[in-house]
Amino acid sequence: MQSFSNTLFADAESAYEDACYVIFGVPFDGTTSFKAGARDAPQAIRAVSYNLETYLPYYDLEMPEILFHDMGDLYCDCLPDLVTDQVADAVSDLQKDGKFPVVIGGEHSVTIGAVRTLAPAWYVVCDAHLDMQEEFRGSPYNHDCVTARVSETVKNIILIGPRSGTREEFAAAREKYHLYTADDVQERGIASILEEVGDLIGDETVYLSIDADAIDCCMTPGLGTPEPFGLTPTDIRSVIRKLSQKNVIGFDYVEVLPNDAGQTTVVAAHLIREFIAGHYRAHHR
Amino acid sequence: MQSFSNTLFADAESAYEDACYVIFGVPFDGTTSFKAGARDAPQAIRAVSYNLETYLPYYDLEMPEILFHDMGDLYCDCLPDLVTDQVADAVSDLQKDGKFPVVIGGEHSVTIGAVRTLAPAWYVVCDAHLDMQEEFRGSPYNHDCVTARVSETVKNIILIGPRSGTREEFAAAREKYHLYTADDVQERGIASILEEVGDLIGDETVYLSIDADAIDCCMTPGLGTPEPFGLTPTDIRSVIRKLSQKNVIGFDYVEVLPNDAGQTTVVAAHLIREFIAGHYRAHHR
Amino acid sequence: MQSFSNTLFADAESAYEDACYVIFGVPFDGTTSFKAGARDAPQAIRAVSYNLETYLPYYDLEMPEILFHDMGDLYCDCLPDLVTDQVADAVSDLQKDGKFPVVIGGEHSVTIGAVRTLAPAWYVVCDAHLDMQEEFRGSPYNHDCVTARVSETVKNIILIGPRSGTREEFAAAREKYHLYTADDVQERGIASILEEVGDLIGDETVYLSIDADAIDCCMTPGLGTPEPFGLTPTDIRSVIRKLSQKNVIGFDYVEVLPNDAGQTTVVAAHLIREFIAGHYRAHHR
Amino acid sequence: MQSFSNTLFADAESAYEDACYVIFGVPFDGTTSFKAGARDAPQAIRAVSYNLETYLPYYDLEMPEILFHDMGDLYCDCLPDLVTDQVADAVSDLQKDGKFPVVIGGEHSVTIGAVRTLAPAWYVVCDAHLDMQEEFRGSPYNHDCVTARVSETVKNIILIGPRSGTREEFAAAREKYHLYTADDVQERGIASILEEVGDLIGDETVYLSIDADAIDCCMTPGLGTPEPFGLTPTDIRSVIRKLSQKNVIGFDYVEVLPNDAGQTTVVAAHLIREFIAGHYRAHHR
Amino acid sequence: MQSFSNTLFADAESAYEDACYVIFGVPFDGTTSFKAGARDAPQAIRAVSYNLETYLPYYDLEMPEILFHDMGDLYCDCLPDLVTDQVADAVSDLQKDGKFPVVIGGEHSVTIGAVRTLAPAWYVVCDAHLDMQEEFRGSPYNHDCVTARVSETVKNIILIGPRSGTREEFAAAREKYHLYTADDVQERGIASILEEVGDLIGDETVYLSIDADAIDCCMTPGLGTPEPFGLTPTDIRSVIRKLSQKNVIGFDYVEVLPNDAGQTTVVAAHLIREFIAGHYRAHHR
Amino acid sequence: MQSFSNTLFADAESAYEDACYVIFGVPFDGTTSFKAGARDAPQAIRAVSYNLETYLPYYDLEMPEILFHDMGDLYCDCLPDLVTDQVADAVSDLQKDGKFPVVIGGEHSVTIGAVRTLAPAWYVVCDAHLDMQEEFRGSPYNHDCVTARVSETVKNIILIGPRSGTREEFAAAREKYHLYTADDVQERGIASILEEVGDLIGDETVYLSIDADAIDCCMTPGLGTPEPFGLTPTDIRSVIRKLSQKNVIGFDYVEVLPNDAGQTTVVAAHLIREFIAGHYRAHHR
Ligand SMILES: [Mn+2]
Ligand SMILES: [Mn+2]
Ligand SMILES: [Mn+2]
Ligand SMILES: [Mn+2]
Ligand SMILES: [Mn+2]
Ligand SMILES: [Mn+2]
Ligand SMILES: [Mn+2]
Ligand SMILES: [Mn+2]
Ligand SMILES: [Mn+2]
Ligand SMILES: [Mn+2]
Ligand SMILES: [Mn+2]
Ligand SMILES: [Mn+2]
Repeated sequence: MQSFSNTLFADAESAYEDACYVIFGVPFDGTTSFKAGARDAPQAIRAVSYNLETYLPYYDLEMPEILFHDMGDLYCDCLPDLVTDQVADAVSDLQKDGKFPVVIGGEHSVTIGAVRTLAPAWYVVCDAHLDMQEEFRGSPYNHDCVTARVSETVKNIILIGPRSGTREEFAAAREKYHLYTADDVQERGIASILEEVGDLIGDETVYLSIDADAIDCCMTPGLGTPEPFGLTPTDIRSVIRKLSQKNVIGFDYVEVLPNDAGQTTVVAAHLIREFIAGHYRAHHR
Repeated sequence: MQSFSNTLFADAESAYEDACYVIFGVPFDGTTSFKAGARDAPQAIRAVSYNLETYLPYYDLEMPEILFHDMGDLYCDCLPDLVTDQVADAVSDLQKDGKFPVVIGGEHSVTIGAVRTLAPAWYVVCDAHLDMQEEFRGSPYNHDCVTARVSETVKNIILIGPRSGTREEFAAAREKYHLYTADDVQERGIASILEEVGDLIGDETVYLSIDADAIDCCMTPGLGTPEPFGLTPTDIRSVIRKLSQKNVIGFDYVEVLPNDAGQTTVVAAHLIREFIAGHYRAHHR
Repeated sequence: MQSFSNTLFADAESAYEDACYVIFGVPFDGTTSFKAGARDAPQAIRAVSYNLETYLPYYDLEMPEILFHDMGDLYCDCLPDLVTDQVADAVSDLQKDGKFPVVIGGEHSVTIGAVRTLAPAWYVVCDAHLDMQEEFRGSPYNHDCVTARVSETVKNIILIGPRSGTREEFAAAREKYHLYTADDVQERGIASILEEVGDLIGDETVYLSIDADAIDCCMTPGLGTPEPFGLTPTDIRSVIRKLSQKNVIGFDYVEVLPNDAGQTTVVAAHLIREFIAGHYRAHHR
Repeated sequence: MQSFSNTLFADAESAYEDACYVIFGVPFDGTTSFKAGARDAPQAIRAVSYNLETYLPYYDLEMPEILFHDMGDLYCDCLPDLVTDQVADAVSDLQKDGKFPVVIGGEHSVTIGAVRTLAPAWYVVCDAHLDMQEEFRGSPYNHDCVTARVSETVKNIILIGPRSGTREEFAAAREKYHLYTADDVQERGIASILEEVGDLIGDETVYLSIDADAIDCCMTPGLGTPEPFGLTPTDIRSVIRKLSQKNVIGFDYVEVLPNDAGQTTVVAAHLIREFIAGHYRAHHR
Repeated sequence: MQSFSNTLFADAESAYEDACYVIFGVPFDGTTSFKAGARDAPQAIRAVSYNLETYLPYYDLEMPEILFHDMGDLYCDCLPDLVTDQVADAVSDLQKDGKFPVVIGGEHSVTIGAVRTLAPAWYVVCDAHLDMQEEFRGSPYNHDCVTARVSETVKNIILIGPRSGTREEFAAAREKYHLYTADDVQERGIASILEEVGDLIGDETVYLSIDADAIDCCMTPGLGTPEPFGLTPTDIRSVIRKLSQKNVIGFDYVEVLPNDAGQTTVVAAHLIREFIAGHYRAHHR
Repeated sequence: MQSFSNTLFADAESAYEDACYVIFGVPFDGTTSFKAGARDAPQAIRAVSYNLETYLPYYDLEMPEILFHDMGDLYCDCLPDLVTDQVADAVSDLQKDGKFPVVIGGEHSVTIGAVRTLAPAWYVVCDAHLDMQEEFRGSPYNHDCVTARVSETVKNIILIGPRSGTREEFAAAREKYHLYTADDVQERGIASILEEVGDLIGDETVYLSIDADAIDCCMTPGLGTPEPFGLTPTDIRSVIRKLSQKNVIGFDYVEVLPNDAGQTTVVAAHLIREFIAGHYRAHHR
């Protein structure tokens, strides 16, 4: 009998019932302000996941050992408030079933619904942008308002990597949140910052959101709102290796726009696997 | 003194005050269901307009003889109902100033606001799709609902080129509207159909909307929802040459997605000029 | 409950058990002589299938009415003789289960295994090339040897669209097979040729293979070995509409290389649906 | 012993000494006004020539039977007057050695030097543009001045395919030259026009120049100054099949910009071979 | 009233009369020896400028506070000596009007005219190449001769980043100029070199030219003559931050070829803003 | 007399008879498991070699001083075992003629034949992958089996850069070979590792193979099986500078897939020149 493959995330071979981790994609990019196309990211990231060996030497772990399932892509509405509800609803179903949600964007606004449902004690986001607008281009669910919306649910917010925002956003971020700019990472090193972040969080619940544009666009240019002078893929890997050991209850990877030679999606696929493997190592064995 | 050029539509050298025709772009693609990127069309079409000679042999006319102005791109919101209002508002301003609006999409939903303001007796649209959904993916302003929305303002609707829709849409279109499918055009020839269309319209007011996907995607593949087995650029040129002689009061060209080698934008630029020149010839000299 | 979609062929919603038609992809391009990448076609064709409405006006048929299933992609070996065996094996399983096989290439050599298993009375192929080499670049299973291999199983061969081959191939094709070159199609019209082909075949079993390069590369340039001066998509649609009414027992669509703006894959998706719908109409209702 | 291939034009296997036909490329695009990149055409056309079978059924001819040689690319200066001299000089060397020159552009200005050296009685050009400017952007050797420059050497000029030019150019072309516009070709058919052209030329010497933009950009979009509403590849093939039988003494194919999926270069390679084979058939056997 | 945007450089909202800084583009690439297309850079850099927030945290400055104007693109001739005169002329007009010129290339030869007019005491250039040829491919205004031409006007020349040139160029550069190769930057660090450069220059007038290929092509590959083993965007930012505090009287950014996923243009837009903001901070407040 | 250039490797101007170094390309990618297209690399690398100055400052050497020849591309079969034989045979011919072979892939399996013929004491490979499968997708000559095949000829194997493989591969590599992972290079620095490698090898014969994916795909994304978290181009340059001083008897550069903006091919061209120049410096002067 020949074997056949579909194109869901590589090694996501558990049935929903058995899975600990459940991936789904949200192919929505309706509020993106610069380049469109983040809707194509979930499928592009899945496609490149087949390029990776199943074995992760860092964790001495085979991905197929982990019980995870890929539900495919949410059939999205075209309005950001509705998509927020859809994501919230989908995550709520997972929550009820005791599954850990791994969301692949699509644009950053997909984070809003996931956080609303999970209501973690902490929100840690890697992003080039502060995303603190109350409303943008007519919607409070614009991808430029994610931190603002999340702050309505979450008390403690940690921002790693910002280098773009308004004067008011920077001022407010410094006052209200824990802000580690890209320059801070450059100067202090990510390890020192993560030490601090780990102490802040302690054992409380955390939602971790990776906006792909946190990484310098000279390394991963496949982005809707690219920014240079940013973090490295290795910095983000360090964030994930550190925080996956914490009490994380939800994870997303957003804002990839697969218009380059593939480097941005391959980094995304690596880091999503890195999170799942790290979290599994810490919490399931 | 050296001369400089900006990148507004070539030869759009009139001041707003003096212009008869006013172009503006609507870089919105928030409800597109398949490929994103129609937001980039206004600027791409303008860029390729510089490839064209100012002279149109068919009309023996130099574009600079025509008083037309390019306002640039509407600074769009991210929700289709708001963008509809913005377009309606912008067209209303033009109407008050006695200007003829030429709208470059962006997605087809930009037509809704223009038609709502102008309230023509007839709506003629070239499109591969029937766009007759009452609501799609959560919004009645989706680009799949254009004909449905337009029908709330306009009594007489003529559809040229459709070859994609639901069973219900085809049935309703045949019953309520004047439907000339792509197969009809193939069989009867565009000239015969246009004769009929011309008689139907008579001297009444008309809004003409060209959804670029009316043209066969094997000829102009730069489209968000491409369909083969369609019309030729020459068919659409015939439509424009015929109808520009009529009492047209508004025109748009929408749904271009500039992801090919440029053929789709160069056809768009040609046909936009063809409309303006034809209308000018018929009504201003 | 939110709905999710995977990325198998649109509307292929039957379970294997219930299905009449079963699609599978063969992402193999190991013997292609000019441009590589036909391996990416099955997934690219599936992706664009979501751009199409479920309704086919020509047959007044909704695709979801048809019981068809998509198995995903064969996990291929890297040697053409092994892939031939894999395809033959997979088709054999379908045959035993009473399913109609619809194979999406990958390169043309995938046809060899399917035909070997099904052993039809007739082989009808649309192709720019004669594919009659006994061996090419070291393998008798090269995509340039398809007709030669097929002729070992099938007595009656009809070639539609060839315009490229060696002097010996053309001589042999004229002698041994029914050859309708692209020039013949241009001169006589496809309808007249299909009348003749229909009479030849009668009620005997047929395998229909569409090598996408039968179509003129100026219309569908996404091809591994592109040739101009060829057939139109409409010609191929006529072939499929005619022959799907015959006693066809297997179908494939091969040699797409998805490197253009999408027109070649959208034509492929349309024509695969056209075959399934036409065959279903003729044989299941 | 293994065999190796370089990437000169396929089958150009004669030594210079033995060759009847000598190809060379001119990778120059310094005066192009719209899109740059025609410099890459000679090598791109050579690359795609390997996609073609050596056999031409129309002439029942194997390309390797023909003695032709490819010199590679001229090492060009960066000023159009100097490049004109370089081409004139290179063609002059070929002329002295009794070789037939086949020039691959690069932009259309490369024609000027070739014609200057060969001084034919007739100049036949297929082009979307009239190229009759006396000077453009500071140089009389601009690609927009080719016909003007050629007219200084050649008395009789035939233009096939124009659809873009100034009012003055069209007026002058109608007065001084034999002008067959794209619309004329559409209306009368290419065969009738070629009959007329053949009679005009008689047995006198001819230089044949194919500006690739004569072909409709919806069929071959890989062009620096693309124009729709043009000729088909089959029209140009007819021109070449007819005129290659005449007393042609030089040939070029110019203005390809290899930025599409390859259709424009494959048409170019076909038509260059078509010319060489047709001319060889008529004059060497 | 709706708001509209053109596509001049973002935030360049001053009228010419009021502006301190005046941007113009020079879409010329006629002498480029390897890949063509630098002509498209001015418009591509402007387009990406809309991706950037108006606020610059490093200077705590909003771009709209700065009085700057974008004239659009120079309508260029096609010969490099003429373009040199055009640029010289345009810069001369700016000089007379007391404006600071910011030139966006196009190829590096556009620097020649600007420097000729401004006649600074120092010329500082970041470049992978030495550009010291007296003449290249027939013109002394080739982009490979920029330093040679500039040296006819400017006494003191500082080269930062070179790693490509002839043996003679390297010898002469070491002898006549201040040469800091890419390897020097790597070894010593940019800060130490800039300290030295700052001391050399003192308070004298400076022209600063950034050839985008100074940056390693693995970080910003959108270049006509790409070179690896180069500087980082951060190195160039350091150069600009340091030198903008000096008595700079003219600035250009050249040799971008927008053929990548956008990273090279976004770096360019950032660095052009960085220069204007830094210079404004130092000299206007 | 005008000068002409073909498109063999720049400066490869020696006749075969005179050459010390002989380059040939192997445009084979038949076993590649992820993205196809490595077949296009030899010609793409040659094309970009013309972008580089003939002078290498590091060696104070002009490439034309070195006697090297480019044979063009091997006319490959389509089966990996046959291609292995072809490469072995071609290298054998070079060996007999006393030439140093420089092989440009194509996929990594081309190394197998070269090593089999040359039978060096040491095999040093830079690669992201361990390539230690005994068989993969039906062939022992798959590009995933290179190290396994080489180990049948060569006793001493040094792997630099691996970060992808199975658990079994990593275990076996640590046991049987000298393994320096990408993380090792990151931690220890390449210089320290090369010191060790140099000592291991001593004066014995070495074959050096560079799999382009050793380099981080964020720097050079043009790869068939891209991996992030890898080496830098400078690391590989260090490997080449160090090892070219050793008793190297064969060299290859493989697995480039030219689908990016050119950075991966320009790095390849640089490093191939770097090897030839370094080896020439050490052994011929
Ligand atoms: Mn964000
Ligand atoms: Mn962001
Ligand atoms: Mn529509
Ligand atoms: Mn439509
Ligand atoms: Mn075939
Ligand atoms: Mn074929
Ligand atoms: Mn021309
Ligand atoms: Mn032309
Ligand atoms: Mn320079
Ligand atoms: Mn440079
Ligand atoms: Mn390898
Ligand atoms: Mn590898």
